[in-house]
Amino acid sequence: MSSIPASGTLTPGDFHVYDTTMRDGAQQEGLNLSVQDKLTIARHLDELGVGYIEGGWPGSNPKDTEFFALASKELDLRRSTLAAFGATRRAGVAAADDPLVAALRDSGASVVTLVAKSHDRHVELALRTTLAENLAMVRDTVSHLRGEGQRVFLDCEHFFNGFLDNKAYALEVVRTAAEAGAEVAVLCDTNGGMLPHWVADIVAEVADATGARLGIHAHNDTGCAVANSIAAVQAGATHLQGCINGYGERTGNADLVTCVANLEFKLGMNVMPEGALRDATRISHAISEITNYPPSARQPYTGVSAFAHKAGLHASAIRVDPDLYQHMDPALVGNDMRLLVSEMAGRATIELKGRELGIDLSGDPATLARVTDRVKSMEQEGYTFEAADASFELLLLEEVEGARPTYFDIESWRVIAESVGSASAGGALAEATVKITAGGRRLAVIGEGNGPVNALDHALRLAIEQVYPDVARFHLIDFRVRILDQGHGTDAVTRVLIETSDGKDAWVTVGVGANMIEASWEALVDAVTYGLRLHQVTPLR
Amino acid sequence: MSSIPASGTLTPGDFHVYDTTMRDGAQQEGLNLSVQDKLTIARHLDELGVGYIEGGWPGSNPKDTEFFALASKELDLRRSTLAAFGATRRAGVAAADDPLVAALRDSGASVVTLVAKSHDRHVELALRTTLAENLAMVRDTVSHLRGEGQRVFLDCEHFFNGFLDNKAYALEVVRTAAEAGAEVAVLCDTNGGMLPHWVADIVAEVADATGARLGIHAHNDTGCAVANSIAAVQAGATHLQGCINGYGERTGNADLVTCVANLEFKLGMNVMPEGALRDATRISHAISEITNYPPSARQPYTGVSAFAHKAGLHASAIRVDPDLYQHMDPALVGNDMRLLVSEMAGRATIELKGRELGIDLSGDPATLARVTDRVKSMEQEGYTFEAADASFELLLLEEVEGARPTYFDIESWRVIAESVGSASAGGALAEATVKITAGGRRLAVIGEGNGPVNALDHALRLAIEQVYPDVARFHLIDFRVRILDQGHGTDAVTRVLIETSDGKDAWVTVGVGANMIEASWEALVDAVTYGLRLHQVTPLR
Repeated sequence: MSSIPASGTLTPGDFHVYDTTMRDGAQQEGLNLSVQDKLTIARHLDELGVGYIEGGWPGSNPKDTEFFALASKELDLRRSTLAAFGATRRAGVAAADDPLVAALRDSGASVVTLVAKSHDRHVELALRTTLAENLAMVRDTVSHLRGEGQRVFLDCEHFFNGFLDNKAYALEVVRTAAEAGAEVAVLCDTNGGMLPHWVADIVAEVADATGARLGIHAHNDTGCAVANSIAAVQAGATHLQGCINGYGERTGNADLVTCVANLEFKLGMNVMPEGALRDATRISHAISEITNYPPSARQPYTGVSAFAHKAGLHASAIRVDPDLYQHMDPALVGNDMRLLVSEMAGRATIELKGRELGIDLSGDPATLARVTDRVKSMEQEGYTFEAADASFELLLLEEVEGARPTYFDIESWRVIAESVGSASAGGALAEATVKITAGGRRLAVIGEGNGPVNALDHALRLAIEQVYPDVARFHLIDFRVRILDQGHGTDAVTRVLIETSDGKDAWVTVGVGANMIEASWEALVDAVTYGLRLHQVTPLR
Repeated sequence: MSSIPASGTLTPGDFHVYDTTMRDGAQQEGLNLSVQDKLTIARHLDELGVGYIEGGWPGSNPKDTEFFALASKELDLRRSTLAAFGATRRAGVAAADDPLVAALRDSGASVVTLVAKSHDRHVELALRTTLAENLAMVRDTVSHLRGEGQRVFLDCEHFFNGFLDNKAYALEVVRTAAEAGAEVAVLCDTNGGMLPHWVADIVAEVADATGARLGIHAHNDTGCAVANSIAAVQAGATHLQGCINGYGERTGNADLVTCVANLEFKLGMNVMPEGALRDATRISHAISEITNYPPSARQPYTGVSAFAHKAGLHASAIRVDPDLYQHMDPALVGNDMRLLVSEMAGRATIELKGRELGIDLSGDPATLARVTDRVKSMEQEGYTFEAADASFELLLLEEVEGARPTYFDIESWRVIAESVGSASAGGALAEATVKITAGGRRLAVIGEGNGPVNALDHALRLAIEQVYPDVARFHLIDFRVRILDQGHGTDAVTRVLIETSDGKDAWVTVGVGANMIEASWEALVDAVTYGLRLHQVTPLR
C-alpha cells in the first residue's frame, strides 16, 4: 500500500520512546508503587530498551524524592535515560528560588520533563494567573534548568483542547518553550477526548506553525490512545509517551508496547534497539506482577490470548500456514501462538523449558506429553509456572525420575493467629507448629511471627535446619499473593509465589489452594526442597 | 475544527449498529454462553437499542439452533432485529440443497449475515476450491436467501489482507454480493493487523470501485479496533460491527459501546435511539455479569474508573469546573465522575469527597485538615481509600462526630489452620473463634471455612446476626490481598480490600497489617459496621 513507508527511516536515537508508567501510570486507581517497586520497574524498562524512563516528581512527595536519591546510587541503567517530572515555577517567584524547581535540578536526572498549562482556561481557572505570566513561567523554568546543564522536555497539558479554544495561545506556549531551549514540546491529550484525524491535523499544523520538535501523550478515553499516538507520529511527532500495560488515570495512557510494536512491525520504523521487543511479553507480565494488576489476556501483542485461536473453522488452515490467521509472528514480541483445544500448544514450550533446565525431553515423547498434560491441568487449577521455575523443575524431575527429591516427611502443621481485646493494628500474634521427620529424627518445633505465613516459615526452617544446616542460609526475599477467580469472596482460590535466596542464587516456587496458608505451605516446602537440591544435599529418596 | 461534521446527518435507520457479541464475541478464550445467557443478552442489547443482534450460527451446533428456535417464540425484541450468521453454500452443491443454508432460511431471522472468503489465498488454501467457484457460492447463496424473502449482509472475511494481495479479486467478491442482492458488504479485518489510515484508504477505494454499501468489522490486535471502525465510517461505511465490552477472539473485537459513543458524542452522528446510551454503563456491566468476565475498570466510557480522578493537582480545579478535566459529561453514558482519595490528594479532594458522601466540610477547615493529615499518614502505613469508600466514610464520621458508629465490642478472635499428614491440596482446615458483646449479650461463636479469612468471616457474621438480623443479607463479593513493600518476605505489610453486598448496594472496606488475618479482620469489621449504618440500624454508641 502506498502509505506504508520505507523501513528503517529512523534510528532509536532519533526517536524518543518515553515511558511514564511510574508517574502518569501510577495515577491509575488502586495502583501504588513503593520505592523498591519503582527501582525494579526501572530495571525492567531499561532491559526492554525504552529511551527514557520518567521516575516521578522529586520534591512533591517523600517517596519520589527517595526514589531519585536511591536511583543515582543504585540504578545502573544501560540503555535508558532517567527523567524527572515537575511543574514550571510558581507564579511570581524566580525559577532559582522555587524549591520544587530546585528539587528537579538536584534530582540527579539528566532530563527534566516540565509540565506547563497550554489551555488558556486552565491558566486562568486552575492556575489562577495571567496568560503572560504562564508564558514567563515556561520561559524562566526552561532557561534555568538548561543553564544548569539539564535537557528539558515540555509537556503541554490540555494542549488539544487549548488549541481548539485559543490556538494562538497554545502555539505561543510551544514557541516559548522551544525558544527557551526545550528539546521537545509534548502535546498532551490530557482529558483523552481526541480522535486520530483530529490529532493528525493538529500535530501537522503545530509543526508547521512553530517548527518545534513535537511529542505525543495520549489517554484512552475514546479507546483511541494507540491510534492517536500513531497518527501523531505519522504527522511528524518524534517523541512518544506511554505506559506499560496502558496503566494510567481513568481509562489509562497509551500502551507503550502496543504503540512501539505498531511503529516497528506495521510501519517499519526503527525506534527500539534491535530485537528488544522479543522481551516485551515477559517484561509486560513481570511489571504486572509488581503492580499486582493481573495482565489483560486480551492485551494487544503481549496478552496471553493475543495469539490464541479457538479451534474449528480455522484449525486445519492454521496447520497449513499460520500466517493465514495471525497478523504477525508472535515470537517478535516474545509471545506464542496457542491453539486452545490442541495438545500441540504447550509441548514445544515445555520441551524448550526442559532444555533450559538441562533436561532433554526431545527423545521421550511420552514423558513430554505427560508433563504437558499435568502442567495444563495444574494451570487450570490456578498454578502458574511462568515465574515459578523452581516448582516447574521439581515437577519435571518427578515425571522424568519417577519422584521428586524428598528431604523430610511431613507429619502435620498448624497455625494459630489470635487477638485479644479490640486491639488496633499490631495486636495480633501468630504461632505455628510444624512436625516433621528428617535424618531419622522426629522434629516438633514452634515458630512465631507477625503473621501466619511468617510464623509457618520460621517453624519449618527451624525444624529442617537441625538436620540440614544449609537451610539457615535460605531466606525469603519476596512473597506474593493473588486471589484468582475474584468475585467468589473469601472462598476464592489463592495463588502464592515465594522467592527464596541463599545469598547467591534466588528461586521462585508456587502454591495454590482455597486456603491461603496451605498454598503458602506448599510453596515453602518446594522452596526448601529446591534449595537443598541446588546445594547438592543428598535427599532421603 | 473543520473536520467535525454537522450533527445529526444520519438517522439510526440509515446506519446499522450491529452487535456480534453472541457469535464472534463468544470466540473469546474462556467465554461460554448458555442458551438462556444468550436470550438475556439479547434482551439487554434490545434495551440498549442496537440495530441488529447476531444470535449465532443456526445449524452449526445444537445450542445455536435451539437459541433461534426459542428466540422466535420467547424473544419479543422492540428495537433490534435478530440476525442469523452462516457461511455461503459448500462448493459444488446448490444453495437450496445445502442443509446449513436451509438452517439459515428456517432460522426465523429476517436478516442473514453470510461469511464469504474474499482473500484469494484463503479460497485456495483453507476453502480448497477455485476462485470462480467461491464467487458462484456467494452469488447463489445470496440470491437464494433473497428469493426466500430474507435480507442478506455479507461478511467479507480477511478482506483487507485479500485486498492487499489480490485487489481485483477482493473487489469482485463485493461486486458479486451486491449484484446478487446483498444489502451490505462488511469488510472484515479478520486477523486484526490494520491501522486506521490503511482502513480509511481501502474503504474509500472499495466504495469508489464498487458503489456497494459497506460495513466494517474490526479486531483489536494493533490496539486500533475502535479507531479502525471510526476511520471506516468516516471513509463511508454505514454499518458497524462490534461486541459489548470488546469481547472476542485473541485481543477482542471492536468495543461496540465505545465506537457508538465516539460516533454520537465526538462526531455528532445520530446512530442510536435518542438517549439510549444513558443505559450503556449499566448494560455493559450487566452483560459482564452474564459472561462472568469482570468488567475492566479502565474501559472507555463505561469503566468504573473511566471518569475517576486521582491527582490532588486537579481536584481544586475540578471544583471550579468539572469540564476542565473530563472529556464529556459521564451521565450521557450512564456513568459517574468519582474523586479518588489518595496520597496525592490534598484538602480539595477530601472536601469534594465529603460532599459526595453528604458531609459538608467546607465550613470546618480544622476538621478538613485533620482528616487530610490522617488519610496521608494512613496511606503511608499502606491503607488506600481510593477504592475503599466505606472505610473512608467511617473515618470521616469518626473525625466529624468524634467516634465511628459502634455496633459491638470485640473481646477476642482466634483462627486455627492445620493440616495432618503430607496432605495434597484441600487437606487443610480452618476454624475461627469470635467473642463479642452486642445488644447486651456476650456471643462466643465458631466458624469454619476453607481458609482462615473465610472462617473468620463466617464466625463474625454468625455472631453478629444473632443481634442484628440484617447481617444475614450481607455477603462478600470480592476479596483482594496485596503484599506491600515486597522484598521483605513474609514479614511485609499486607493490605486487604473487601467488597460486601446486601444484594442491592455494594461497599468496599480496607484493612492493613503485618498479619494478613488481622488486616482482613479490620476490613470485615468495617464492612459489617458500614452495612448496618447503611441499613439505618441504631448503633450502641
